[in-house]
Amino acid sequence: MHDLVSRLRGVLPPLVTPFREDGGVDLAAFERNLEAYAEAPLAGYLVLGSNGEACALDENEKLQLVRVARAGARGRPVLAGTGLESTRGTIELTRRAAEAGADAALVVTPHYFKSQLGGDALVRHYEAVATAAPIPVLLYSVPGYTGLPLPAAAAIRLAAHPNVIGIKESSGDMGFLSRVLGAAPDLSFLCGSAGAFYPALCAGATGGILAVACAEPRLTAALFEATRAGDHERARTLQRALVPLAAAVTTVHGVPGLKAAMDLAGLAGGWPRAPLAPVSPAVREEIRETLARARSAAA
Amino acid sequence: MHDLVSRLRGVLPPLVTPFREDGGVDLAAFERNLEAYAEAPLAGYLVLGSNGEACALDENEKLQLVRVARAGARGRPVLAGTGLESTRGTIELTRRAAEAGADAALVVTPHYFKSQLGGDALVRHYEAVATAAPIPVLLYSVPGYTGLPLPAAAAIRLAAHPNVIGIKESSGDMGFLSRVLGAAPDLSFLCGSAGAFYPALCAGATGGILAVACAEPRLTAALFEATRAGDHERARTLQRALVPLAAAVTTVHGVPGLKAAMDLAGLAGGWPRAPLAPVSPAVREEIRETLARARSAAA
Amino acid sequence: MHDLVSRLRGVLPPLVTPFREDGGVDLAAFERNLEAYAEAPLAGYLVLGSNGEACALDENEKLQLVRVARAGARGRPVLAGTGLESTRGTIELTRRAAEAGADAALVVTPHYFKSQLGGDALVRHYEAVATAAPIPVLLYSVPGYTGLPLPAAAAIRLAAHPNVIGIKESSGDMGFLSRVLGAAPDLSFLCGSAGAFYPALCAGATGGILAVACAEPRLTAALFEATRAGDHERARTLQRALVPLAAAVTTVHGVPGLKAAMDLAGLAGGWPRAPLAPVSPAVREEIRETLARARSAAA
Amino acid sequence: MHDLVSRLRGVLPPLVTPFREDGGVDLAAFERNLEAYAEAPLAGYLVLGSNGEACALDENEKLQLVRVARAGARGRPVLAGTGLESTRGTIELTRRAAEAGADAALVVTPHYFKSQLGGDALVRHYEAVATAAPIPVLLYSVPGYTGLPLPAAAAIRLAAHPNVIGIKESSGDMGFLSRVLGAAPDLSFLCGSAGAFYPALCAGATGGILAVACAEPRLTAALFEATRAGDHERARTLQRALVPLAAAVTTVHGVPGLKAAMDLAGLAGGWPRAPLAPVSPAVREEIRETLARARSAAA
Repeated sequence: MHDLVSRLRGVLPPLVTPFREDGGVDLAAFERNLEAYAEAPLAGYLVLGSNGEACALDENEKLQLVRVARAGARGRPVLAGTGLESTRGTIELTRRAAEAGADAALVVTPHYFKSQLGGDALVRHYEAVATAAPIPVLLYSVPGYTGLPLPAAAAIRLAAHPNVIGIKESSGDMGFLSRVLGAAPDLSFLCGSAGAFYPALCAGATGGILAVACAEPRLTAALFEATRAGDHERARTLQRALVPLAAAVTTVHGVPGLKAAMDLAGLAGGWPRAPLAPVSPAVREEIRETLARARSAAA
Repeated sequence: MHDLVSRLRGVLPPLVTPFREDGGVDLAAFERNLEAYAEAPLAGYLVLGSNGEACALDENEKLQLVRVARAGARGRPVLAGTGLESTRGTIELTRRAAEAGADAALVVTPHYFKSQLGGDALVRHYEAVATAAPIPVLLYSVPGYTGLPLPAAAAIRLAAHPNVIGIKESSGDMGFLSRVLGAAPDLSFLCGSAGAFYPALCAGATGGILAVACAEPRLTAALFEATRAGDHERARTLQRALVPLAAAVTTVHGVPGLKAAMDLAGLAGGWPRAPLAPVSPAVREEIRETLARARSAAA
Repeated sequence: MHDLVSRLRGVLPPLVTPFREDGGVDLAAFERNLEAYAEAPLAGYLVLGSNGEACALDENEKLQLVRVARAGARGRPVLAGTGLESTRGTIELTRRAAEAGADAALVVTPHYFKSQLGGDALVRHYEAVATAAPIPVLLYSVPGYTGLPLPAAAAIRLAAHPNVIGIKESSGDMGFLSRVLGAAPDLSFLCGSAGAFYPALCAGATGGILAVACAEPRLTAALFEATRAGDHERARTLQRALVPLAAAVTTVHGVPGLKAAMDLAGLAGGWPRAPLAPVSPAVREEIRETLARARSAAA
Repeated sequence: MHDLVSRLRGVLPPLVTPFREDGGVDLAAFERNLEAYAEAPLAGYLVLGSNGEACALDENEKLQLVRVARAGARGRPVLAGTGLESTRGTIELTRRAAEAGADAALVVTPHYFKSQLGGDALVRHYEAVATAAPIPVLLYSVPGYTGLPLPAAAAIRLAAHPNVIGIKESSGDMGFLSRVLGAAPDLSFLCGSAGAFYPALCAGATGGILAVACAEPRLTAALFEATRAGDHERARTLQRALVPLAAAVTTVHGVPGLKAAMDLAGLAGGWPRAPLAPVSPAVREEIRETLARARSAAA
C-alpha cells in the first residue's frame, strides 16, 4: 500500500478558485483560504477539481494554483485534478502538476465521446496514465457532471495497477462502493457526495472530498472524526445537519452557491468565472439561513 | 407513532408471484415460499411489489395474492402494493386490499405523466389516498422503474399526515434519506436498494424491502441483525457478500434473474409473465455461481 | 397491404376523456367532441391513447369509450389503445376492444421492467399480440412517457408480421422513421410529435396522431393536406404556427393543458383525472393567447 | 443578413483530424482529405468540431489545423469550433482562430456545470462571445455529447444579436427547428443529424454539418441538391440510403467508425486519439458492408 493512502483518511476540501470581478484568478484569496483551512483538522487538499472550476482554467493558471497550494498546504497532501479528454493530454498535465508539487493526481473519466468510452476504453486510458505518471493516481467518477459513471468492474481492474491508489466517487452509489471495496479493500475510497458521507464511511470509505467542506471544514471534519470514534449518534446528527447545506452548495446552486457560502463563512469564495454568475441577493440570503441552520442543528 | 412502525424493523421480502408455464398464477408455489420464509427472521412481507410483477396482474389475481399472503404470514405484517396511475383507482384498490387482509399499503408514485407530476401533484395524490385508506400508507419511490423520484420535500410534507407511516426508497439516495429522516425521524424508512442497505441502516433506515431477500432471506436478515447489534465488521462482510447477488437479481437480470436464484435456492421462483422471459441456461449458471460466492463470502 | 392502411392517411386526434368534477367519465362530453370532429377532414380517431388518460381508466370505462367512439365515428376508423404491461393482459384487452368495435389496436411498448425489455422481448410481445389479435395491430413507441424507445430493428422485424400494419412514433426521431420506412415502406407510419409532423410527412409518414389535433383539428388537417398537395410553403407556415400550441398542450402543460385548450376552442376538455389537476387561471390565459397566436399565424 | 449566410447553403463536412499511430496530428493526411473534398459540391468545412476530436487537441494543434484548412479550402468558407467551458477562453480561442483564417466560429454550449447553465447563462455567454468575436458566430447544440440542449427560447433571443448568424443543431429536434426558424427565419440553420437531414431541409434548414459527409461527401451533397431541386423522390431515396451508414459512423461506432469508413472510402481517416481506439477488424468489415449498401441503395 502506498504511503499516501494512510494519509488520505479524512476530509479534503476541493479548493475553489476565487476569481476577481475582471475574471482573473485571485491567488491571494486562494492563499488566504489555505491559511484558514490550516486551523481545521483536514487530511489534505484537492486543487483543480470540479469545484475549482478546472474546466474553465488554462494550463498556466492550473500549474500556478498547484504551486500555491503546495506552498500553503503546510505538509498536508495536495491532490491535483489532471484529467483531460485525451490520454496524451492527461499524461502531460499530470507530469507538469507533479513538477509543480502535486502529491497525487485525481483523474476524471474522459467523457465527451461517452458512447465510445465503455469499461475497456477507460481501463486503457487509466492504465496508460497511471503507468506514465510520476505520482500516484486516483480515479474520479462524477456522472452528475460527465454523464458517464465509471463501471465498478473497471475500477476493480484498475485497482490492481500499482500506481492506482484510490478513487473519488461523487454519485453516492453505495453498491459501487461495496463492490469496489469488497474486491479492493486497500484502495483509498474518497466519497464525493456529502449526502452519502456518513453512510459511506460506515461502509468503508476512507474519507471524503466534499464541496461543503470548503465552507464548513470543521463540521465536515467533525463528522469524519465522530464516525471514526464510533460515536454514531453524533455522526448522524452532523450528517443530517450538513445535508441541506451540502445540497445548496452543489446540486441546487452549484459553484456560485458554494462561493457565496464561503463568503458568508468568512472565507474567500470570490467570483465564479463566466458563464457561471454570482448568486442573486435572494439566493445569498437563502444560503445564509441554510448555513445558520446547519450550524445550529450541528450544535 | 402507529403501532405498525415498530413492527416494520427488519427485512421484508417483496414476494415474487410464481407463474406456471401457461401464464397462470401458481398460488401453491406462492404458499410454499411463505412457509419457507416463516423459518427466517423476517419482519413481514410485501405482496404486489415491483418484484411481484404487480404491473402484470389483474385485480382478481392481486386480491387473491393478498388473501393467501395474509393466511400464510403467521401473524407477520403484510404490506400490499396498491398504487395505480389514478388517485381514484389507488384508493379503490387500497380498500379492497385492506378487506383482503393487508396491514398497510405501499403506494408507488404515479408516473406516466411525469412532467405533470411535480411535488404538489404527488402530495395531493398521497394525501387523498392516505385520508381515504382504511389502513396505513407507505410512500414508494422507485425511479429506476418509474423515471420519477419522489422529491424529499414532498416526502417530508407527507410525513405529517397521520396515516402516512413510512416510505420505501429504492434508488439508494443517501441524501434523500438524511433529509427525510432529519425532518421526520419517526417515519418507517425502508431501504429498497440492497447495495445501500447497510449504509442506510447506519444512517437511520428502519429496515429493507429487498429483492435479494426473496432468494437469501437469512443472510439479508443477518445483515440487519448484525447492524442492530453493533457488529459493523460482520455487517460490512455481509453487505459486500450480498451486493453482487443483489445486482444479479435486480439491475442485471431483473425479475427473471430473481426467480432463477430462488429456484436455485430451493424456493419456488416459477416462470415470469411474458413479455418477461426466463433467463437462459448460461445466465442460470452464472447466477448459480454468484449465489454460491455470496454464501461463501458471507461465511 | 391491409385495407385499413390506405384509410389511415391523414390526421387522427387522440381523443381526450373528459371527466366530471367528481372524477367520473363524462360520456356525453366525449360524444359532443366526436360530433364536432365530424365536420373536420380527419382520417379517424384514437381512443384510449396517452392523451385519453388510458392509464387512469378501468377496463369497463375503456370498453365503454370504445363503444361510444365506434358509434360516433360515422364510419371513420377507430383505433384503440390496448397495450398493458403483460402480453396476456394486452391480448385480452385487444379482444374486448375489438368486440366493442375498434378497427385496430395501438399497442404501447410494455416498459415498467425497462432493463429487461430489449428488442427481442418486445418482438416476442408484439408477435404474440399480433397473432392473437382479431384486429390489426399498430406499434406505439412513446419514450417521453415510457422511457423506452422501440428499437428500429425491432420495428423492422415486426413489420413482417401480417397483422402488424403500422406504427405510431411520438419522439419525432427522424432517423428511426427513415430506417423503418426504408425497410418497410408499406407500413402505416403515424407521427406522434407535432413538432415533427410536416418534416415527417415529407420523409414518408402517412399521417399523424397528434394531441394538438384535439384542440385544432382543422389546422392540423390543413397541414397534412397542404403537404399532400405539394404546397410546401403553406405547410411550413402551418407547421410553424402549430408548434408553440402543440408544445403548450403536450410537454409544457400536458393533458390538463390540452383540455384547457379544448375548452377554449369550444370543445369539451373537461376535468383531468387526479392526480392530474386542471391548469391554473394564469396558465389558461397563456394557453388562450397561444391558441390565438397559432390561429393568426396560420391565417 | 451577413454575406456568409448565403454561402452556408449546403453540406459542410466536420473535418476529422487524422492522427498517426504515435498520437501526433497527421497534417499531410488532413490536407489530402481537403484535396479530395475539393472535387465534391460542398458548401464549406468545419474544422475543430466534435468529429474533429477538438476536445482532445491542444491549442497549437487547433490553430495549425485552422491554418491548413484555410489554405486547402480553395475559397470555401471555413468554420472553426472554438467553444470552451469559459466565456473568457472561448473569446480568446475565437480571436486566434480568426487570425488563423477561420471565417466563422461554431461555439458549442458550455456544459460541464449543466445545472447552472440555464437559458439566461447561455444567452449571457453567447452574447459576450458574439460581441467580442471578430468573426460571425454560430451556436452549436449537441446534447448527445454535452447532455445540455440549448433551449429554443435562448436561440431565438440570440438570433437578434448582429454577430450571431446561425446555429448547428445535432439532436434532430424538429420542433426546435420549427420554433427557431419561425421566429428567426434568416438564421443559417445547419442540421447536425444525418437521420434528420432531408426532413430538416424540407422544414427550412439551410444545410447540414454531418459526419457522414466526411466519408460520403457526394451522396450527402446530392441529397441536399435533390431537395433544393424539388426532387423529393430522389431525396427520400438518398436519405434512406444514408441513414444506416450515418448511424454506423456516429451513434454506433463514433469517430473511430467514421475514420474507418473514410479509410474504406479512399480517404485518410487515420488513427483516433486515445482513449478512442480504432475499430476492430470485425467492425471494419461491418462498416465496409454498410458503406457498400448505402452506395447501392443510392444508385
